[in-house]
Amino acid sequence: MSGNSFGSLFRYSTFGESHGPAIGCVIDGVPSRIALAEADIQPWLDRRKPGQSRFTTQRREADQVRILSGVFEGLTTGTPIGLLIENTDQRSKDYSEIAEKFRPGHADYTYQVKYGIRDYRGGGRSSARETAMRVAAGAVARKVLDSLVPGGVVIRAAMVQMGPHTIDRSRWDWSELANNPFWCPDATAARLWESFLDEVRKAGSSTGGVVEVVAENVPAGLGEPVYDKLDADIAKALMSINAVKGVEIGDGFAVAALSGEDNADQMRMKDGHVHFLSNHAGGILGGISTGQTIVARMALKPTSSVLTPRLTVDKHGNEVEISTKGRHDPCVAIRGVPVGEAMVAVTLADHLLRQRAYAGS
Amino acid sequence: MSGNSFGSLFRYSTFGESHGPAIGCVIDGVPSRIALAEADIQPWLDRRKPGQSRFTTQRREADQVRILSGVFEGLTTGTPIGLLIENTDQRSKDYSEIAEKFRPGHADYTYQVKYGIRDYRGGGRSSARETAMRVAAGAVARKVLDSLVPGGVVIRAAMVQMGPHTIDRSRWDWSELANNPFWCPDATAARLWESFLDEVRKAGSSTGGVVEVVAENVPAGLGEPVYDKLDADIAKALMSINAVKGVEIGDGFAVAALSGEDNADQMRMKDGHVHFLSNHAGGILGGISTGQTIVARMALKPTSSVLTPRLTVDKHGNEVEISTKGRHDPCVAIRGVPVGEAMVAVTLADHLLRQRAYAGS
Amino acid sequence: MSGNSFGSLFRYSTFGESHGPAIGCVIDGVPSRIALAEADIQPWLDRRKPGQSRFTTQRREADQVRILSGVFEGLTTGTPIGLLIENTDQRSKDYSEIAEKFRPGHADYTYQVKYGIRDYRGGGRSSARETAMRVAAGAVARKVLDSLVPGGVVIRAAMVQMGPHTIDRSRWDWSELANNPFWCPDATAARLWESFLDEVRKAGSSTGGVVEVVAENVPAGLGEPVYDKLDADIAKALMSINAVKGVEIGDGFAVAALSGEDNADQMRMKDGHVHFLSNHAGGILGGISTGQTIVARMALKPTSSVLTPRLTVDKHGNEVEISTKGRHDPCVAIRGVPVGEAMVAVTLADHLLRQRAYAGS
Amino acid sequence: MSGNSFGSLFRYSTFGESHGPAIGCVIDGVPSRIALAEADIQPWLDRRKPGQSRFTTQRREADQVRILSGVFEGLTTGTPIGLLIENTDQRSKDYSEIAEKFRPGHADYTYQVKYGIRDYRGGGRSSARETAMRVAAGAVARKVLDSLVPGGVVIRAAMVQMGPHTIDRSRWDWSELANNPFWCPDATAARLWESFLDEVRKAGSSTGGVVEVVAENVPAGLGEPVYDKLDADIAKALMSINAVKGVEIGDGFAVAALSGEDNADQMRMKDGHVHFLSNHAGGILGGISTGQTIVARMALKPTSSVLTPRLTVDKHGNEVEISTKGRHDPCVAIRGVPVGEAMVAVTLADHLLRQRAYAGS
Repeated sequence: MSGNSFGSLFRYSTFGESHGPAIGCVIDGVPSRIALAEADIQPWLDRRKPGQSRFTTQRREADQVRILSGVFEGLTTGTPIGLLIENTDQRSKDYSEIAEKFRPGHADYTYQVKYGIRDYRGGGRSSARETAMRVAAGAVARKVLDSLVPGGVVIRAAMVQMGPHTIDRSRWDWSELANNPFWCPDATAARLWESFLDEVRKAGSSTGGVVEVVAENVPAGLGEPVYDKLDADIAKALMSINAVKGVEIGDGFAVAALSGEDNADQMRMKDGHVHFLSNHAGGILGGISTGQTIVARMALKPTSSVLTPRLTVDKHGNEVEISTKGRHDPCVAIRGVPVGEAMVAVTLADHLLRQRAYAGS
Repeated sequence: MSGNSFGSLFRYSTFGESHGPAIGCVIDGVPSRIALAEADIQPWLDRRKPGQSRFTTQRREADQVRILSGVFEGLTTGTPIGLLIENTDQRSKDYSEIAEKFRPGHADYTYQVKYGIRDYRGGGRSSARETAMRVAAGAVARKVLDSLVPGGVVIRAAMVQMGPHTIDRSRWDWSELANNPFWCPDATAARLWESFLDEVRKAGSSTGGVVEVVAENVPAGLGEPVYDKLDADIAKALMSINAVKGVEIGDGFAVAALSGEDNADQMRMKDGHVHFLSNHAGGILGGISTGQTIVARMALKPTSSVLTPRLTVDKHGNEVEISTKGRHDPCVAIRGVPVGEAMVAVTLADHLLRQRAYAGS
Repeated sequence: MSGNSFGSLFRYSTFGESHGPAIGCVIDGVPSRIALAEADIQPWLDRRKPGQSRFTTQRREADQVRILSGVFEGLTTGTPIGLLIENTDQRSKDYSEIAEKFRPGHADYTYQVKYGIRDYRGGGRSSARETAMRVAAGAVARKVLDSLVPGGVVIRAAMVQMGPHTIDRSRWDWSELANNPFWCPDATAARLWESFLDEVRKAGSSTGGVVEVVAENVPAGLGEPVYDKLDADIAKALMSINAVKGVEIGDGFAVAALSGEDNADQMRMKDGHVHFLSNHAGGILGGISTGQTIVARMALKPTSSVLTPRLTVDKHGNEVEISTKGRHDPCVAIRGVPVGEAMVAVTLADHLLRQRAYAGS
Repeated sequence: MSGNSFGSLFRYSTFGESHGPAIGCVIDGVPSRIALAEADIQPWLDRRKPGQSRFTTQRREADQVRILSGVFEGLTTGTPIGLLIENTDQRSKDYSEIAEKFRPGHADYTYQVKYGIRDYRGGGRSSARETAMRVAAGAVARKVLDSLVPGGVVIRAAMVQMGPHTIDRSRWDWSELANNPFWCPDATAARLWESFLDEVRKAGSSTGGVVEVVAENVPAGLGEPVYDKLDADIAKALMSINAVKGVEIGDGFAVAALSGEDNADQMRMKDGHVHFLSNHAGGILGGISTGQTIVARMALKPTSSVLTPRLTVDKHGNEVEISTKGRHDPCVAIRGVPVGEAMVAVTLADHLLRQRAYAGS
C-alpha cells in the first residue's frame, strides 16, 4: 500500500535511491521453466542508460544487472527473482542548495511535506533512476509474454512529438529509430528535432514530448472489467512514470470530436478470423483486448531543472530563487521511450497471468 | 484480481448487470462514527439518473439506494457498508439481434471472447448501469473526506468539450451547471451544444466529449510514489469509466509543447503558507498532492449505438450489418460528469486513509 | 484492508450485521460457464441453519439465498456474483443490558475500544450470523473446484471432540453424521455427547469442541510458498471463524513429540503414481499439497453467554455482573462444522486459480 | 499472489535461495523519521544464526545485513527499505543424491510437482535460510512498533516443549533463556533437554518442539474482523514458518474442554482501566487485541533429514532409499524461536498501521 510495487500476479517491488549504494527489485510471479539470464535484461537497460548522446543527462552508470535468485541452470524456478544494480556514479557534489530549496516543478516540496524528510541527493527516490528497475522488470515480462503467447508479443515505442514538433505519421518507419538519438520513426522530423533540441540545450532550457507505445500480437481477452480494465491499468502504468501528465488509448482525446459512426471499428471476417477495418479503439474494447494492436500514448513534461532562475521558497519559509547548472536532460521524454515500453510489458504480463487463472472451465 | 473492486484502504466491490434483479456494492474501510444515511447518497444518484432530459437515455430507473449494513443509529460502525439498488426498468424487449451480433465499438465481442458467454440484455455487466454504484461509493467517500479533512473537500466536474465544440474558459461559471442539461459552465457554449446535440440526436448519431474534474481543498501529501502516485491512481480511476479513452492531469498533453521555464509552477509565501503562482501540475508533483486544486480531464468516446448501419459479424462468423434503434445516449459524456467526480472522490478517500496509516512518527 | 474479504483470485467480501435488514456478499473471481443456481447453495446453508435441534440457538432464520448477478441462463458469466439473505428473525428484545455491559469472552469490549461504537443487537457484526455468507461462498467454491478438478474435490468435516470427550477414531463412519445432531462420526461418542450436552444446556452453561476438516482428491501442487503456503492460508481461514483458538494440519501439535523417522511419510510407487505410506503431514509439504488427503483441525471455545453471573464492567467504567438468559448455543462448535468445510473450500478454490495462473510454460 | 510477500500496510517481500549468491528483501510501508541502522537488525540475526551450539546446523554464515535504501542520515525516509545478506557458506558438496531423490517429509517432491524444476542445493527456496529475512523484517517491525506505541512493545519467545518433554510453567524465568542453547525458560527442563537432544543428535535422529511467543504492551484495538482478525493473521504468520504444523492462541486446543464460565476472562477496573482477571483468550477477543498480553504457540515437526534410511522414490519413478549424513538440525524448533518472534512483530506492525488508517473521526 506504500506504493513501491506494481502488478498483481506478475508483481514486482522496487527499492533504491538515486545516490544510495544500489537499486533493485523483487519480481514475484514468474512461471517456472522460462529461460532467463542477465543477457536477457541487460540490452534493455542499455537502451535506457543515460549519457548515450548529448541529449540525455551525462551521468555515467554501467547499469550492470545481477540476478540474485529465482533462476537455476538457466531456467526460472517459480521463486522470486531478485535483481540488483549497484550505483556507480554518485558524484560527490555540493547539495547544500537543493537540500534547502524546493525546485519548482519537482517532487522536492511534496516529499518534504509528506515524509518530513527527503534524500535530496540526485532527487533520491523521486529520481528517474528508479526507472532502470522498471526496464529490468519489463525485460523479464517480455520473456514471460514470449514464453506463453504463441509467436510472442512485440512491444515497441517511439517519440511522436518533441516540444511543439510532431512527426508525420505517413513517414513512420520503425527502422529509423536506430538512426537518431530520439527514438523518432520519422527521419525528417528527427533532423528538425536535433536542431531544436540543441537550441533548447544550449539555452539551459528543456522541452516536453509525446511517446507512443505499440504492442502487437496481444491475445484477445486480456483485461478484467470493470475496474482493472486493460486500458485502466495501462493508464496507471504510464501515468506512474516520472513527468507523465497525460495518457491516451487509441484515438485518445480525439474521440471527443468524432461521431459514433466514425469511431466504431467495423468488423469483417478474414481467413476465418474477425478482422477490424480500423483501430480507433487502440486494441481495447470494454477494457478487454480485441486482438488488434494496442496503441497507447503518454505526454511527458519538460524537466524543471533549467538555467533561468525560478522563484521558489526554502525549508525555512524564505522566498528565494533557484537555477540548475550542470548535467540534466533537455528532453526527459527521450528516456521515457524504453520505460513506456517496459510498463506496457509488465501490464500485459500481469493480465496474461490473470486471464490464465480465470480461463473458463 | 477479477476486477470488480476499487481502492485499497477505502475499497469497494460492485456487482450487478443492467437487466439483473439488482446492482449493489460493499464498501469496506469506512472509519467509524461518521454520520451516514441514504439521504447522503441519494442526491448524487439522482444527478446521474438517466432520462432527465431528452439528451440522455430514456430508461427510467428510480435508483433508490438502500443501506443494508455498517450504519447504526445514524453513524458508521467501521463494518462494511452494503448498498443495494433494485433494477426496476428492465423492459422486456427483443434481444435476438444483439444476442447474435457484435455491435462494433461495444464490449460485445470482447466479453464473448474472454468469457465464452455474455449477458447481452442491455449490455449486461458492461452497461453504464454499473456506474450508479460508483456514484454511490463516491457519495460515501465524500462523507469520509468531509469528516477527516478540516473544511471538507469539494469535488466538482463540468463538461468542457462536446464533439468539436469547446468552452471558453474565461466564461467559466460553476453556477451555470444548473442551467443546462450538459453540466456546462459556459452559458454561451451550452446554447450552441443544445442545437448541436439535437441534430446529432435526430440523426440517430452520437458524439464524444471531454469532462474536467476539479477537487479543491485536498490536503498536501496524498499519494504513494512510485507506483501508486495520486495521478496514476486517478488515471486508472477515470480510464476505468465506460467510454473513456484519454486522461490528463493539469496541463496534460499540452505540457509536451511547453518549456521547463513555463511549466514550473513557481512558489512564494503567503500568510505563512507556500503559495504557487500557477497550476500547470494540476495539484500533483512527484505523484503527491501539493495542496493546490487537483485538475483532471477525461475524454469520452461517442457511443457506437447509432442508427446508420455498421458492418459487423455475428457469433457464427457471418458478415452482417447492425444498427441501433430505440433509446440511447447521443452524448454519453454528459452522464460521465457525476461518475468522474465520484471516481476522484473514492481515489482521494483511499489515499487519505493511506496517508493516515503512514504519517510519520 | 479492513478485513471483510477473503481470498485473492477467488475472493469474496461479506457485509451485514446480526440484526440488520440483510447479510450478503460479492464473490469475484468465479470462472465463466460453470452451472450455478440457488439450489447449489441452499442445501449447504440449510446444514448451518440454527434451530435444527435443541443443541443450537433457537433463532429461526429461513436463510433463503438469492443470486443477484453473475449468472445468465444457468451459467456463471465471469462477472461478480452478488448473494443476499434477508434477516427475518430479528426479535425485538430488550438490549439495554448488553448495550451497556461488556460480556466477558465476547467481542463487545474490543469492538467498543476499536470503533468507539458497536451495533450490540445480537452481537452485530461479530455475530456468527456472518458465517452464513461463508457457507454460501463455500458452496460456490465447491462448484468451482468440481468444475475444474477432474473427479471433483470432496470436502467434509466432523466433530471429533466435545468438551473433554473425544471420539474413537477406529469407529469413524462418515455415514453416522446424519444420525446425530453433532456431525459426530462415532455413534458411541454421539450418545455420550447427547447426555453430556443436555446437562450443559440445562445448567445454562456451554462447552468447547474440536472440528476436523478433510479434503479428498485435492490436486498436488496447490500452495504458494513461502508466505501463502496452503497450510498457512488454511490456518488463517479457520482461525478467522468465530470462537476458534487453535488450528492443526495433519498430526498438528503431536508432531512435537515425534522423531524424524516416524514423522516422515515414506513414499512408494503404486500404479505408476507416487504413493505415501502415511499422512502425518496432512497432505501438505513445504506449503504445497502433495495429492494426499488434506486434514485440518480447529478448536472452538465455549460461548461465554452463560447463565452463571460473571464479573464485568460497563461502558461507564462501573464494575457490574452479567448473565445470559434466553437462546444461545451450548456448543458453538457444532455449527462450526459446515463453516470449517466452507473455509477450506474457498481456500482451495483460491489456490487452484493461483496454480492455474502460474502453471509452467 | 505468488506468495513471497507478507503483510498489507507493513509489507515485505523476500527473495533468495539457500545456495544462491544472496538473500534479500524489500520492506515497504515503514513510516518516515524512525531511527534505523544495520545495528538495529544485526543482533536479531545473530540470535537466529546457525552453528552457535552443537544443537543447530553447523553451516557457518556471517549473516551480515546491509541496508541498501530507505534510510537517510540515520532516519527512515518513508521509501522502501532494501536489505541484502550475501550467502558465504555454500559448501560445494555432492548434490547428486538429493537432485534425484525426494526426501520424505521435505518439500522436494511438492516443489518438483508444482514447478517442474527445483534448485535442490541446500533445499533452495524451501530452506530455512529464508527465515533470516523474516528476522530482519521483524527487527524493522520492532522499530516501527517501538516508535509508534508509547512504552514500546516487547515480543519474546521461548521453547516450552522439546520432543515429549514440556517445561514446568511455575519455573518460567525469562532470564534463563540466556543460560541454555534452547531458549528454555525453565532451568531444570533445559538440563533434561540437553541430554535428551544429545542422544537424538548422536543417533542421527531428530525431534520436534513447541515455541510460545508472548507480546506485551500491545495496544487494544488491533485486528480487522472478520477475516483479517489479529489471531487469524498471527496463525497464518506462524503456520508459514518452515516445519510448523499447529498454532494456538491463548488456551488453544485446551479450550475445547473448558466450560463457558471458566473460559470467560472476567473484567474489573484497576486504576481507571479495564483489568482482566485471567487471559484464556491470549489477548485477543473477536479478532481484536484486548490490551492484555498476546500469547501464541506453534508446534514444529522434527526434520526428516535423519540417518536411518527411509523409503522414497526418485524423479524417474524408481523406488529407492535415502538417508541424510552430515550437518543438520536435531531440533529445528530451536531456531524457530527468533523466527516466531519476528513473525508476530511484523503482524503487529502491519495491524498497527491499519488501525491508524481507520481510527475513527
